[in-house]
Amino acid sequence: MADENPVRFGIMGCAEIARKVARAIHLSPNSTLHAVASRSVETAERFAARNGLSPTVKVYGSYSELLEDPHVDAVYMPLPTTLHLHWAILAAQNKKHLLLEKPTALDVGELDRILEACESNGVQFMDGSMWYHHPRTAKMKELLSDTKRFGQIKSIHSSSSYSGNSEFLDNNVRVKPDLDALGALGDAGWYCIGAIMWAMNYQPPSTVTALPSISRNSSGVILSCIASLHWEKEAVVATFFCSFLAHESMDLAISGSNGSLHLEDFIIPYEENSAFFTFTSGAKFVDLHVGWNVKPEETLVESELPQEAMMVQEFARLVKGVNISGCKPDCQWPKVSRMSQSVMDAVIKSIEFGFKPVRM
Amino acid sequence: MADENPVRFGIMGCAEIARKVARAIHLSPNSTLHAVASRSVETAERFAARNGLSPTVKVYGSYSELLEDPHVDAVYMPLPTTLHLHWAILAAQNKKHLLLEKPTALDVGELDRILEACESNGVQFMDGSMWYHHPRTAKMKELLSDTKRFGQIKSIHSSSSYSGNSEFLDNNVRVKPDLDALGALGDAGWYCIGAIMWAMNYQPPSTVTALPSISRNSSGVILSCIASLHWEKEAVVATFFCSFLAHESMDLAISGSNGSLHLEDFIIPYEENSAFFTFTSGAKFVDLHVGWNVKPEETLVESELPQEAMMVQEFARLVKGVNISGCKPDCQWPKVSRMSQSVMDAVIKSIEFGFKPVRM
Repeated sequence: MADENPVRFGIMGCAEIARKVARAIHLSPNSTLHAVASRSVETAERFAARNGLSPTVKVYGSYSELLEDPHVDAVYMPLPTTLHLHWAILAAQNKKHLLLEKPTALDVGELDRILEACESNGVQFMDGSMWYHHPRTAKMKELLSDTKRFGQIKSIHSSSSYSGNSEFLDNNVRVKPDLDALGALGDAGWYCIGAIMWAMNYQPPSTVTALPSISRNSSGVILSCIASLHWEKEAVVATFFCSFLAHESMDLAISGSNGSLHLEDFIIPYEENSAFFTFTSGAKFVDLHVGWNVKPEETLVESELPQEAMMVQEFARLVKGVNISGCKPDCQWPKVSRMSQSVMDAVIKSIEFGFKPVRM
Repeated sequence: MADENPVRFGIMGCAEIARKVARAIHLSPNSTLHAVASRSVETAERFAARNGLSPTVKVYGSYSELLEDPHVDAVYMPLPTTLHLHWAILAAQNKKHLLLEKPTALDVGELDRILEACESNGVQFMDGSMWYHHPRTAKMKELLSDTKRFGQIKSIHSSSSYSGNSEFLDNNVRVKPDLDALGALGDAGWYCIGAIMWAMNYQPPSTVTALPSISRNSSGVILSCIASLHWEKEAVVATFFCSFLAHESMDLAISGSNGSLHLEDFIIPYEENSAFFTFTSGAKFVDLHVGWNVKPEETLVESELPQEAMMVQEFARLVKGVNISGCKPDCQWPKVSRMSQSVMDAVIKSIEFGFKPVRM
């Protein structure tokens, strides 16, 4: 059932990912797309035409115009990371709720300024990590919380990679030091760090250590790297690999004392309407160790809406809570983003310190 | 068709794993079990009875007696690692071909002495890693060698773990510093290192780095650890996790520039007669990034013999080459073992040096 007072979104920046989120806003029952903005009105118009946006959607040739539109309740901001600090703070100051693409900032200092602006202006903040919102994620958390079937968490490995072609490696915003200086760590590693911290219920690791295996382009932007996180008291270790130079991967493997969970499409499910993961519990080897007593069991989770539409829906629900019901903005989502950004800072620091462990 | 001159095996040590290999010798068409030995004749007799060995199988109450039996062509030696140096060299000196359980020795210096004894006595050496011999392994190598479908190797992650109960953690030979001092690294990590080196065609890594996350028992034996291997020139990175404290896992994930391969039972297949892995090649995200253009494809590989029988068969084939056809012992298998042992040494050294990278 359509919402009579949907949250009115403005999209700031016509990146490829904005096409996906424009559709998600359309699909989300409590949201509507009110305006799109680019640095030139031609680009914004092309975006509107290409994506079949309704003629009622306003088209702006500057970000400021969109932020000044009083009918915009919330902005989705897929700008290059370098521009986040400026425009995210302006958005908050214009009382626009903020759905900010990842990585949220160049470092946690910048993110803190954005979060402070959101808090002092009473607007909701959320980053654009979509996979948290898939019902599969909740189902996995349910199993990971089962102390009998899964037990205590022991190790996590995640990878996020794709093979950039030469056009990408030469020209994409993600490899430009003045636009997305965090490179593969910010773009692909963000998800791995998020998944690891999600699995650990956002408990900060004791140390973060980058490994002496890193590829950079001629401008020094990270194209591939690997790092580990360690929780001393809990004796948990996590590793992640992120790369623009390896085949498409979105792996998450989590091992507990009594069970283990695997999936290879955690960021973008293979299919839109249903997604699966495998779970193994109580595995033992049969007599003579010639086989296993159990095999991984596939759990299939259907979803009526794509995960990005569920993200928009959840964000809009929180926005309506603030705008209509007078609730305070939810503080969990900013914490989630801040945790990923802090770990990312520690990875960078570890690299700069010659791959030494960095205490958090 | 049964071999008229099968290789006659003696089993030295009645460990649990010896039951599996006794059966494998029985199943392998070019092998026969001639004798079993333990430190007491009662243990050896119990082993023979429990495993339904033919009454023609000789039962010895000492290892020396077995090594002096001129009808024993080859020995399978599943003794605690600490005892390998002494007994493996004696076996070679008694002209017995040597199938030696892993880890092959406490360090590469010891292994070199064993390998020298084998070489100077003209006997075949092989370690007891069974999974190399499964036809699935050959099929995986075929795909990994496909420069179009897989491309250049980029990253590898492997884990080998099982959850030892309190009886195991208190009393098992694998946690005793005077018997299997390498603990989980030697027992479980051996396989991960072997898989990584197998994937890399046994090219030595530039550096090996243990991570600052290690669990030991009160005697200092490693119960859980994690390490990484790095090939500088090739820009390849591998990580592995081995543990006696985590749920049963045998994961191997290999990522190339154009494809990726996954399996979760690489050491012991879920089932004896067929095993599978998944392979993905040329994956891209569909328009709007709402799904993948391809999903992992399962490749099923059937095997008439269990992998341990194929190991015995291959070993016996080489033994017959030496004993009957006058061939030189094959030198590839000793190299394979030596590579794993060398990497293991580097992991230990990295731990001792405070988790610094160790050049190889």
